[in-house]
Amino acid sequence: MSFDPNTLIYDSNGLIPCIAQQNDTGEVLMMAWMNATAVAKTLETKRVTYWSRSRQAFWIKGETSGHTQELIDLRLDCDRDCLLAVVRQIGAACHTNRRSCFYTSVTFGAEVELMTPEG
Amino acid sequence: MSFDPNTLIYDSNGLIPCIAQQNDTGEVLMMAWMNATAVAKTLETKRVTYWSRSRQAFWIKGETSGHTQELIDLRLDCDRDCLLAVVRQIGAACHTNRRSCFYTSVTFGAEVELMTPEG
Repeated sequence: MSFDPNTLIYDSNGLIPCIAQQNDTGEVLMMAWMNATAVAKTLETKRVTYWSRSRQAFWIKGETSGHTQELIDLRLDCDRDCLLAVVRQIGAACHTNRRSCFYTSVTFGAEVELMTPEG
Repeated sequence: MSFDPNTLIYDSNGLIPCIAQQNDTGEVLMMAWMNATAVAKTLETKRVTYWSRSRQAFWIKGETSGHTQELIDLRLDCDRDCLLAVVRQIGAACHTNRRSCFYTSVTFGAEVELMTPEG
């Protein structure tokens, strides 16, 4: 069955969440949003491309930081309303210069930092 | 710093996306939504509890199917608008009886099924 980005389920802003996971370690790196064109660009270029809600513009991950995400596999969920991008992440995925955006754990009712910014 | 679910960033429906990841294998199992009360319940009970948008009700994962998610760790992202639940998933996470909801890959422009239903 051939894939058409327009068959995905987008929210009222035309966006779908996309989780990025490192292909070899399985780390969940980040979650950001795509529109149908960003999905198509990601598949075409193999450079993961999100839609920045704050800038209202395409966001080719790593274009300014060099911390690119090479697409290894794009997966959709059973409801077609969430994507999983299996990627090869160069350096930090997070804008805080941490490997993953999910660096804060809720442990015994407190916020605990699990990762420090990279060198 | 003590954690208060009300300090998370919820969307206009009062919901935050939560990714569930298996603790030992790193598999991304599913993504669903929580409200502030669901976050609190999840932390309190260690049974991952979502908010069902279709049923408009709390959804204690596995309550009817037996496919429970035991919470190992709850993490928040840098923007405080996405959660990662590290879990111990019993059986299938997906309602299609597959281990993960992300069983469809977009490969060379076509949809390819990566997993079959369990059991």
